[in-house]
Amino acid sequence: MTATDEREGFSHSRTLTIEWGHCDPAGIVFNPNFFGFFDWSSALLLEAAIGLPKPALLAAHDLIGIPLVETGARFLKPSSYGETVEIVSTVVEVGRSSFAIRHRLLNAGTLAVEGRERRVWAGHHPEERGRMKAAPIPEAVARVLRGEAVP
Amino acid sequence: MTATDEREGFSHSRTLTIEWGHCDPAGIVFNPNFFGFFDWSSALLLEAAIGLPKPALLAAHDLIGIPLVETGARFLKPSSYGETVEIVSTVVEVGRSSFAIRHRLLNAGTLAVEGRERRVWAGHHPEERGRMKAAPIPEAVARVLRGEAVP
Amino acid sequence: MTATDEREGFSHSRTLTIEWGHCDPAGIVFNPNFFGFFDWSSALLLEAAIGLPKPALLAAHDLIGIPLVETGARFLKPSSYGETVEIVSTVVEVGRSSFAIRHRLLNAGTLAVEGRERRVWAGHHPEERGRMKAAPIPEAVARVLRGEAVP
Amino acid sequence: MTATDEREGFSHSRTLTIEWGHCDPAGIVFNPNFFGFFDWSSALLLEAAIGLPKPALLAAHDLIGIPLVETGARFLKPSSYGETVEIVSTVVEVGRSSFAIRHRLLNAGTLAVEGRERRVWAGHHPEERGRMKAAPIPEAVARVLRGEAVP
Repeated sequence: MTATDEREGFSHSRTLTIEWGHCDPAGIVFNPNFFGFFDWSSALLLEAAIGLPKPALLAAHDLIGIPLVETGARFLKPSSYGETVEIVSTVVEVGRSSFAIRHRLLNAGTLAVEGRERRVWAGHHPEERGRMKAAPIPEAVARVLRGEAVP
Repeated sequence: MTATDEREGFSHSRTLTIEWGHCDPAGIVFNPNFFGFFDWSSALLLEAAIGLPKPALLAAHDLIGIPLVETGARFLKPSSYGETVEIVSTVVEVGRSSFAIRHRLLNAGTLAVEGRERRVWAGHHPEERGRMKAAPIPEAVARVLRGEAVP
Repeated sequence: MTATDEREGFSHSRTLTIEWGHCDPAGIVFNPNFFGFFDWSSALLLEAAIGLPKPALLAAHDLIGIPLVETGARFLKPSSYGETVEIVSTVVEVGRSSFAIRHRLLNAGTLAVEGRERRVWAGHHPEERGRMKAAPIPEAVARVLRGEAVP
Repeated sequence: MTATDEREGFSHSRTLTIEWGHCDPAGIVFNPNFFGFFDWSSALLLEAAIGLPKPALLAAHDLIGIPLVETGARFLKPSSYGETVEIVSTVVEVGRSSFAIRHRLLNAGTLAVEGRERRVWAGHHPEERGRMKAAPIPEAVARVLRGEAVP
């Protein structure tokens, strides 16, 4: 899912403790919850990269949203109740109007889940405000996401 | 939590199968999920009582919402993955601008969880549209909720 | 994500109403919930294919579980509160000890989300009972999953 | 729900940021999620009070669990995406084999949700190991929960 030679851009990490309510009867994290963890990691990455919380970010760029269009994950090792994990989220691709983030969830230093997602920079359609239309990512934002400029 | 002599009004039932993802490492439904089940049961009860799906209901009565102001539950018997349960939801009180619903979750015919919630009929504040203000429940709606009229 | 010429095996469909609690502040299903929908669809598919509920299935084949090792989805069209969707789940690959399921979520007949997952037939390690080891899928099960035999 | 003169015992606080995925189409925390927050707060309180993580705690006292038997909450003020809240959890009652915890969720210093729950100290039935039976809370634990001794 992740080419080993992909170019790494802006990165953000956080730690998280696995809660009882995240886990299923097998005693391990129920897989949809990993996508919830990654969704919030992406929100924190964007806030750190762009320097604005999401509502202000959307307003500043006249966006409707930054919707997810594709996501996936490989589950290599289970994580259980009470364990503290680290999620390292890294921009790995910046296109004209979309970008990709890779999430690596490490448990005791070992890669346990690897996820990847693509999001679109979605503005308003010129003929119908409120209808989404992919918009070009501003060059200043793209450079930060690519890791070529600091926030 | 529920007086045995309370007057029963409009009632609505549904069945539900307990999914793997509803359960925790003890193999039983994680308690917050019961409140999710009850929330949806209340939505279905209101739709059945008033004859409109929620967005149309709010528009017809110029409401901002029907927010929950209080809820609680007693857990008598656990429910596990694969079990089919019945939730019987009944209006047990109709006040001027709020009403209460009791939820009984039956597992194999036995009461397993009993919940109760209070919701408010919330319209717009006269001096600031968009700010919530409790509004009187229309008499036609109140009579259906009390079980004195059919939807 | 899904080759158009892949061979289709056993299939199972269900309908589902999108609940208020499935949706986020954008008013659409929060993406991790789709993976919860798919997880349950896979459980129902396996139960229909093999003719046993999951606990009995695991016991009959001396399995520890049928864990997810990879999943992904493309989000083509949002789904909102109150909409009824159909999920069509189809086995699209059966290997020696793993198999893949494709999930198509249709909203008003249009493909809204396409997911795909891979699961492993996981028995006990010969040297340490309780430790997972991929086991060969029994030929009778494989033939049903491939759609070559009826359950 | 909470008497103003109740005796306060062991207390534990934590802060939490409200995530996008915690919120519903009204843009506020979906009510069942508050019970998920409180469940984890109770786990942290017990770990802090008793000085053992939950699995070790259960083993040390030969318990099957510390199950929730009753819970409830009043919702006074909504909380939205991106807000940081504080949850103050306090033991407010310690009985022979059960105890109660009060949770106060403060948003910008204002009480937004008040919850209360009762849990049982559940050991093994003398005639059938594995079947739950309320057990007396050891005096050393009760004294810490009541705030009469330090952990």
